[in-house]
Amino acid sequence: MNLVAENASLIDRITAGDARAVARAISKVEDGVQGAAELMKEIFPHAGRGLVIGITGAPGAGKSSLVDKLALVYRRQGERVGIIAVDPSSPFSGGAILGDRIRMQALGLDKGVFIRSMATRGNLGGLARATVDAVAILDAAGYARIIIETVGVGQDEVEIVKAADVSVVVLVPGMGDDIQAIKAGIMEIGDVFVINKADREGVYATEKELEALLSLNARHDDWQPAIVKTIATENKGIEELAKSIEEFRNAQLENKLGVERRRAIARWRILELLRERLLADALSVDGASERLETLAGKVATKERDPYSAVEEILKAGVRSQNSESGRRRD
Amino acid sequence: MNLVAENASLIDRITAGDARAVARAISKVEDGVQGAAELMKEIFPHAGRGLVIGITGAPGAGKSSLVDKLALVYRRQGERVGIIAVDPSSPFSGGAILGDRIRMQALGLDKGVFIRSMATRGNLGGLARATVDAVAILDAAGYARIIIETVGVGQDEVEIVKAADVSVVVLVPGMGDDIQAIKAGIMEIGDVFVINKADREGVYATEKELEALLSLNARHDDWQPAIVKTIATENKGIEELAKSIEEFRNAQLENKLGVERRRAIARWRILELLRERLLADALSVDGASERLETLAGKVATKERDPYSAVEEILKAGVRSQNSESGRRRD
Repeated sequence: MNLVAENASLIDRITAGDARAVARAISKVEDGVQGAAELMKEIFPHAGRGLVIGITGAPGAGKSSLVDKLALVYRRQGERVGIIAVDPSSPFSGGAILGDRIRMQALGLDKGVFIRSMATRGNLGGLARATVDAVAILDAAGYARIIIETVGVGQDEVEIVKAADVSVVVLVPGMGDDIQAIKAGIMEIGDVFVINKADREGVYATEKELEALLSLNARHDDWQPAIVKTIATENKGIEELAKSIEEFRNAQLENKLGVERRRAIARWRILELLRERLLADALSVDGASERLETLAGKVATKERDPYSAVEEILKAGVRSQNSESGRRRD
Repeated sequence: MNLVAENASLIDRITAGDARAVARAISKVEDGVQGAAELMKEIFPHAGRGLVIGITGAPGAGKSSLVDKLALVYRRQGERVGIIAVDPSSPFSGGAILGDRIRMQALGLDKGVFIRSMATRGNLGGLARATVDAVAILDAAGYARIIIETVGVGQDEVEIVKAADVSVVVLVPGMGDDIQAIKAGIMEIGDVFVINKADREGVYATEKELEALLSLNARHDDWQPAIVKTIATENKGIEELAKSIEEFRNAQLENKLGVERRRAIARWRILELLRERLLADALSVDGASERLETLAGKVATKERDPYSAVEEILKAGVRSQNSESGRRRD
């Protein structure tokens, strides 16, 4: 079967809601195999109906439990739920996979829930792009609620969560001395704030601090984010969280907040893809890997500086391109 | 004064240890202004003597206090110390800057300490590159100990910490349900582990868990990372931390662990620079910004998919390049 026919059959199965086809397609975009870009071009027209919820917050905030409980709320409403756990901090090992295994106990037997972990693969990045592609695949397969959960709170995670329709930021009471620094970054992306583990000491102080920060209104629109208190492990506050998420979604649909946001997301996606594609192209030139290794060795021993190394790689790329176009002209 | 002369004068002042010249140069590389790449090419031959220490860990682990106390140990040893606080999670506001202000009280009056915060600027990334450039500038200025401290624990932060000579990972007792996931990522980058807030409940359990994970030996070399218990706010365990850092450094110098690592760092730096440069070049083509905006609008409304949008941008870039080289040939 050729690639076009293979993709066509895969897309039929995806749009019919086949979970195995979804898993297969996600692996394709994750590995960046041949035909993956073509597949995504076909997927896009089918996507855009689901609600994409991004959930971020410091490690230890209890995001996984929260996501699991939220998924159960959606299941009770009869919606199919996709969960993508993103773990950019684990370049080699099975951080995210371990998380999967624990999860499977609670949700894994439910056929209306699709769970997938995504971690970084190698130097070339592309995790953010692969994540949004995976979301589009789930969307095309009719998952009405798609939750992206991040492990960390770094730049990549913030970017990924920004690409959701609704961003949920999870805090816990008394997070300590770094909270100011986190909050500054988080203020701009949170549509809904959760104070989880709300039976702990310091809830009131954290809530007041958060309200004070939110009153500074760092947002680019008029939305006043809700603060929801939850105890995920005891299933408390989860319905309220689901309600706050829908409220933001509705506000977005009504007053066109969504248009600008979708445009910003689209811009970001294009740039991510472009970045990835440019680097892949530059490294696909004949002898590029060897050149990179040689230059890395020289930079390591300080014979060269990385800036001039990059210039050499770029020049080699241009030379190769010119000789190719020269050949074409003959 | 032309750029070359300006850079030459700046480099003279940097190598003489002038803190204002250092600040100026860091701003240049951060803003990516004209002449910044040239400046860095001149800086590199002067760098490479200082010990670069990367410190990462979950928010709330007390990294800032730990870094401040570690800096004081080095000051007592008569070394000048550079601190770079990296905050990729705050794209717009002053997360990192707030951190600075608090810090100034303890260390800011000491002329042997240079503190700088670096945060993301806009869509184009480059924070990781700017951070390692800033380290090289401090190094060239004779700061013998350079500490990079990250706010989050995402991919970017891990990458930045990997670029240090010694990576220190800070944990706290009883971090909760995400600790397994974090640890998996952290196992591979930590040369020294700190359990901070070691007066808290659960220290023993955290230590045992960490030892068990370390015994799996996910590292690519034979180093057995030390576990140091600290209470940064009470200045406890900091001398031991400094000692463990030096031990790793010495092991590195002796048994050539360092060579491979420096090569990996060099490769990563080249790729980071290359990525940034390629994107900047692609977006500097005539009409590229307008094209990006138009396409973003169309992708947002689902008239287009992001993959074909990227192809259009790439084709426009090639057309522009060909017409330029055509002009050159005339």
